[in-house]
Amino acid sequence: MGVTQTKAYGADSAETPIHDMEIKRRALLYNDVEIEILYCGICHSDLHAIKNDWGGTTYPIVPGHEIVGKITKTGDKVTKFNVGDLAAIGCIVDSCGNCQHCHNSEEMFCEEGWTVVFNSPDKHLGGMTYGGFSKSIVADANYVLKMPDFDDLAAAAPLLCAGITVYSPLRHWNAAPGKKVGIIGIGGLGHMAIKIAKAMGAHVTVFTTSPDKMADAQRLGADEAVLSKDAEQMKSQKGFDMILDTVSAKHDINMYINTLKVDGSLVLVGLPNEPLEIGAFNVVHGRKSLAGSNIGGIAETQEMLEFCKEHNITADIELIQISEINEAMERLENNDVKYRFVIDLKS
Amino acid sequence: MGVTQTKAYGADSAETPIHDMEIKRRALLYNDVEIEILYCGICHSDLHAIKNDWGGTTYPIVPGHEIVGKITKTGDKVTKFNVGDLAAIGCIVDSCGNCQHCHNSEEMFCEEGWTVVFNSPDKHLGGMTYGGFSKSIVADANYVLKMPDFDDLAAAAPLLCAGITVYSPLRHWNAAPGKKVGIIGIGGLGHMAIKIAKAMGAHVTVFTTSPDKMADAQRLGADEAVLSKDAEQMKSQKGFDMILDTVSAKHDINMYINTLKVDGSLVLVGLPNEPLEIGAFNVVHGRKSLAGSNIGGIAETQEMLEFCKEHNITADIELIQISEINEAMERLENNDVKYRFVIDLKS
Repeated sequence: MGVTQTKAYGADSAETPIHDMEIKRRALLYNDVEIEILYCGICHSDLHAIKNDWGGTTYPIVPGHEIVGKITKTGDKVTKFNVGDLAAIGCIVDSCGNCQHCHNSEEMFCEEGWTVVFNSPDKHLGGMTYGGFSKSIVADANYVLKMPDFDDLAAAAPLLCAGITVYSPLRHWNAAPGKKVGIIGIGGLGHMAIKIAKAMGAHVTVFTTSPDKMADAQRLGADEAVLSKDAEQMKSQKGFDMILDTVSAKHDINMYINTLKVDGSLVLVGLPNEPLEIGAFNVVHGRKSLAGSNIGGIAETQEMLEFCKEHNITADIELIQISEINEAMERLENNDVKYRFVIDLKS
Repeated sequence: MGVTQTKAYGADSAETPIHDMEIKRRALLYNDVEIEILYCGICHSDLHAIKNDWGGTTYPIVPGHEIVGKITKTGDKVTKFNVGDLAAIGCIVDSCGNCQHCHNSEEMFCEEGWTVVFNSPDKHLGGMTYGGFSKSIVADANYVLKMPDFDDLAAAAPLLCAGITVYSPLRHWNAAPGKKVGIIGIGGLGHMAIKIAKAMGAHVTVFTTSPDKMADAQRLGADEAVLSKDAEQMKSQKGFDMILDTVSAKHDINMYINTLKVDGSLVLVGLPNEPLEIGAFNVVHGRKSLAGSNIGGIAETQEMLEFCKEHNITADIELIQISEINEAMERLENNDVKYRFVIDLKS
């Protein structure tokens, strides 16, 4: 198989800094497109992967799964894109295409397992896939999104992971006018969830442990902000149809479950490493649920991009140069970002 | 308010045995019926209440909430029953009647809180309500079920709690032909769940920790029985639409969640005192849920009784005389019953 070389930014181990390297991209297959990457968001799971926090990292690793760019080449049979089009890639770059879930464009449930944009076995070149911390990428056009022309394209990059990760459960659990939605945590995911849930028409309450984020919650569009450490404030909370929990550290979920209405759901999108504790009484009374959700399929990601364009929703970002990447990773580790770093890959 | 006296069997403290006592029942209000109690099942929560395991027990306590009997008197406005009719009472004997949930006959979600048949504030007489370990009971006819003429009326008594507790979630989560349902635990609840899920047309797999219950699972109608302590057997389990968890001790729920299909639910009806641990990854992957369910409303309880009559479903019971009550309670504490004690109150 033909290959091209491109510049990328990756790590050789959990302990060493990200540095530039040359990687291979496959020569275009008939349904592939090549994308010049303009911007790539930095998600906490990029950091987890670099540090091998969840195990399974193969080095060198080139992370990045919130990718926005421009089509520079198209395969012979590609009709979806033309050279010069804006395009985007999220987590999923391939799946079996044959199972019931792929047929429903819920590729994240693919029975054969789907191919992650980075650190996933590369069917074509062998080795592992390399992500968006790179100058260019090649992917099957079926897994590439059409990118609306957001005014701030860099700020739209985080929609590809943070955006769809909250959009999908908000749709699935029916955030809508007349519904009361809670969002736990104001970070990369939480701040997107506030904007999207509000645009869906729900009444949005934000739970935060940080007094200094209370004002931000309202600036982002929340109807109410609640300091979750304040038992008095928590006591008056009730009647939630759905609460989206974006916290990725161990925390008490029972106090939130108790604020759900009958048949309400607390939906985890954060991924604490340690198990969470749940009291059986808390779900049994009121037929409540604790559920989880992970990204979304390609069709829904496209729908989300159009929804966000229509409602003028992008992430609150700090745009960095590639030379600042290691500093950004360190700040991300300390949760010191409002609310997403995006790398300017033209830099 | 007029009162009558009746004989009952209750406890004066957590440490003392059940003994006979005289209690008051209210004189009939216009919508009340009086029932001569023929049979009353013994549920583990009767034992919990006597022992004050969950707190909140007021002594003397007269438990019993799986009550079957005959109408002996009817209030002036009662049209639902005639003297001599078979009738039954479960957990719920009153609710506000005005909230949305009462209007939907989901009285177990009543916004004002519902009145439990025993150890619940008695609106009419003051003090606490007294349950079915008694010769007779008076209740509002709206909360009294019409009892089909089961061949074995004693064996039908446990339907009033064990039956509805499993029927309601099996219906809610759509146990039906083509669906794969798991039942964890073969006890009072579990053995009813096997029969009912099978009658609903689902494919039923039973998970048990007891090798000596494997044959029983199949006798009760299960399509498959799995020894949950056997990692090899567990490994091949997958594709469950719903698993009903009837275990009331702390246990690992994650290994069951991992056998659910996409969008599947593990539903707790058992009530372990200690919190359960759940790994966020386990629900996030495949958008799974951990949910809970608690009894069912009056309309659904009536539906369940008719369903069980039609499908010839009753509990597997050991019928005891009232003189054997303390011995039965001791055996229940040791889970030494297949699968429900029922008291013959004619004795």
